[in-house]
Amino acid sequence: MSGPTVAVIGAGISGLTMSKMLSDYGLDFTTYEASDRIGGNWAFGNPNGHSSAYRSLHIDTSKHQLSFKDYPMPDDYPDFPHHTQVKEYLEGYAAAFDLNARIEFENGVLSAERLPDGGWRLETGRTGTRYADVLVVANGHHWDPRFADKPGEFTGLTMHSHHYIDPQDPHDLTGKRILIIGIGNSAADIAVELSSRTLRNEVVLSTRSSAWIVPKYFGGKPADKYYRTSPYVPYAWQRKLVQIMQPLTAGRPEDYGLPTPNHKFFEAHPTQSVELPLRLGSGDLRAKGDIERFDGRTVHFADGTAEDFDVVLHATGYNITFPFFDPAFLSAPENHLRLFKRIFKPGLDDLAFVGFAQATPTLFPFVECQTRLVAAWLVGQYSPPDVSRMEEVITADEQKYTAHMVQRPRHTQQLDYFLYEHDLRAREIPAGRKRAAAGGPTAPSGRTPDSVPAGAIR
Amino acid sequence: MSGPTVAVIGAGISGLTMSKMLSDYGLDFTTYEASDRIGGNWAFGNPNGHSSAYRSLHIDTSKHQLSFKDYPMPDDYPDFPHHTQVKEYLEGYAAAFDLNARIEFENGVLSAERLPDGGWRLETGRTGTRYADVLVVANGHHWDPRFADKPGEFTGLTMHSHHYIDPQDPHDLTGKRILIIGIGNSAADIAVELSSRTLRNEVVLSTRSSAWIVPKYFGGKPADKYYRTSPYVPYAWQRKLVQIMQPLTAGRPEDYGLPTPNHKFFEAHPTQSVELPLRLGSGDLRAKGDIERFDGRTVHFADGTAEDFDVVLHATGYNITFPFFDPAFLSAPENHLRLFKRIFKPGLDDLAFVGFAQATPTLFPFVECQTRLVAAWLVGQYSPPDVSRMEEVITADEQKYTAHMVQRPRHTQQLDYFLYEHDLRAREIPAGRKRAAAGGPTAPSGRTPDSVPAGAIR
Repeated sequence: MSGPTVAVIGAGISGLTMSKMLSDYGLDFTTYEASDRIGGNWAFGNPNGHSSAYRSLHIDTSKHQLSFKDYPMPDDYPDFPHHTQVKEYLEGYAAAFDLNARIEFENGVLSAERLPDGGWRLETGRTGTRYADVLVVANGHHWDPRFADKPGEFTGLTMHSHHYIDPQDPHDLTGKRILIIGIGNSAADIAVELSSRTLRNEVVLSTRSSAWIVPKYFGGKPADKYYRTSPYVPYAWQRKLVQIMQPLTAGRPEDYGLPTPNHKFFEAHPTQSVELPLRLGSGDLRAKGDIERFDGRTVHFADGTAEDFDVVLHATGYNITFPFFDPAFLSAPENHLRLFKRIFKPGLDDLAFVGFAQATPTLFPFVECQTRLVAAWLVGQYSPPDVSRMEEVITADEQKYTAHMVQRPRHTQQLDYFLYEHDLRAREIPAGRKRAAAGGPTAPSGRTPDSVPAGAIR
Repeated sequence: MSGPTVAVIGAGISGLTMSKMLSDYGLDFTTYEASDRIGGNWAFGNPNGHSSAYRSLHIDTSKHQLSFKDYPMPDDYPDFPHHTQVKEYLEGYAAAFDLNARIEFENGVLSAERLPDGGWRLETGRTGTRYADVLVVANGHHWDPRFADKPGEFTGLTMHSHHYIDPQDPHDLTGKRILIIGIGNSAADIAVELSSRTLRNEVVLSTRSSAWIVPKYFGGKPADKYYRTSPYVPYAWQRKLVQIMQPLTAGRPEDYGLPTPNHKFFEAHPTQSVELPLRLGSGDLRAKGDIERFDGRTVHFADGTAEDFDVVLHATGYNITFPFFDPAFLSAPENHLRLFKRIFKPGLDDLAFVGFAQATPTLFPFVECQTRLVAAWLVGQYSPPDVSRMEEVITADEQKYTAHMVQRPRHTQQLDYFLYEHDLRAREIPAGRKRAAAGGPTAPSGRTPDSVPAGAIR
């Protein structure tokens, strides 16, 4: 093998998809996984602590949109598979493409340091120091809990949705007064679950931005089957059309007692929930606005009211965290990380990121599409533009995908899969191929000790 | 007082509404209630055993359609009140109109025998023999469980939705293989509740007729706000229009794996559930067709498949039962009871029924409207047509309201509230007033010992 040696961090969706692509291309790679299993977030109870799955979790994307392009979900799967089915699907994927043999389990990357002349020195949990010419970061962005930052102290039980399993695990959440902060999909699911009258809780949901609610089904079909943005019509026009059609679906948030959103429909990630409007409209769940401060068991809200609670559950999302990088070298403050096509950090010619976006409506094919570009780069078939051009494009893309969004850490990574896929397939990959053919830089090799005795470390 | 003495059996919705109307008219009446409280079906855990409410039950009718015309639900009630709120509302109603003083609690009617020359002798639980000129039967039709009648014996736990309270009460329904029979609103609610992944059950729903599912919300408003049949357009045309519009709401039952219904949309009572399609489409719940037979723990289905279960829960509705009547005198085999305007039994001039219909979309105003006619009859302002005319009208009304329905015990009582209300208000009550003015018979009085010392029994 003459290409670069590649280290992939993580064997969740992103690392697994990357590994499959590297294997397809016959590249010399090692995937490092801290856990004893694949699946990352979708490995319920993952010993590496990186799964945020609760017992009742189903994926919000229908199987029709979710499947990898080269490995469809089984026909007997329901429209919205349970997390156990997503995990089984990923296991089938790993088995079909013989990926497990390329993954070093229980051997997480503790630190990744870029060598002075490029290339990477890794400190691993089980096998000490290792090297690679190129590093692919695929450690996910749904595992480091982000808490609502409010003044004062709450003296009851504080927990994050990341640790929520079910009403009995890890805490007995029955007969309690519970405040859930947030209105993303996890917040909605957990609020619905805990507000079941059978559990005798009193549940309040607090939301700062409020949210537009979209159903999982429309006219008997998974609603995301209707989702198909076109690259040939201005994105702003398509958003406008969706805004016009919205009243036909779930109505306004205020209809259910939610605060008035600080944004129009589709200007921020909507919350997919069939049950949330029902629970609000049935009085099982109450909604309030922003929190002003905590004081013992009392929560003071921005509207001047105050209520006592036993439990405050933060369903407020996650930080993008790279525990293996020196923060002075690279970090994502407020989840902001300027990456070219969500892949390359301008100025670092041997580093790629995979899976760091909130792609609507679907994640798996988005990652698949990213790994195509990365693989082309690794085999010398893709050359990125120069640094200043990359910076221009990053700014333009942020403008396109997130300028209309409310500025919040959870929205920094928003993008539209269909537009992104078309951009990469029809424009960026062909353009990069031309640049490579013209002698532009592709992935570097031969920079690290491992480059010479290729494969010796396995 | 010169009018008839009246005995009302039951202080649920129907008996309570009747009592209020009798009180308004200053009539001499006694309401007999076996329980120590009002509310009947809506008195959760009612000691008389006649409540079918489970802990999580919310009324399927929105408060906008549900309220009595003369006593609106409180503004702070949610769209779909919880059973505790319905009960509180009824308590407020009873208090506002001072009804409790007219109800004899813990004094149920054990038998009601018609005297040879008319009038009624009642045997009561606490006060022995009592008399009344006129009997109003308001004992409800949602308390005597009807079980699916299938060959063979199931040796696991058999229970009826009537006795279901929550997943722990009266039986531990966690980690079980559960078959739920039926697809009415209770079947849907309980199937959704028990199939929550947090309970680790495996739940299958068996339905013979299948059902069309309608959402509780449409465009952010309670769906029943859009329900308003017109008496001026043929009913069949209105059904047709609804059938054409249906695909805009919940799709076809087959979309979610339900069997193909044996009827068109709106030809049988649809099932109102937001969550059932979601649970089916998420694979938490599976649907099967009719049951062929039971054999030990095994259930054989009509499609030739067989599965083992720990629990079979019949959510198959209720029998119309009058335990105080000699069945040879009056009964409702297969829930069929021919009543003129669902009130009068032709040939019995001193008996009225109240609340014996499945009125779409709302029950309370339907009962209220029935009691208006009954009260007019009791004060000599309404005279029913003669027996042969009554029989003709019964047949015509059955044709109108239920001929298009699948012939099932649960559909014998189906009627459309808006058409019924218009029929009574604009046609039947004025016609009966003319008949009364022309000397037609109204409610008889002076037939029983109680008629003379009126009020003495209180």
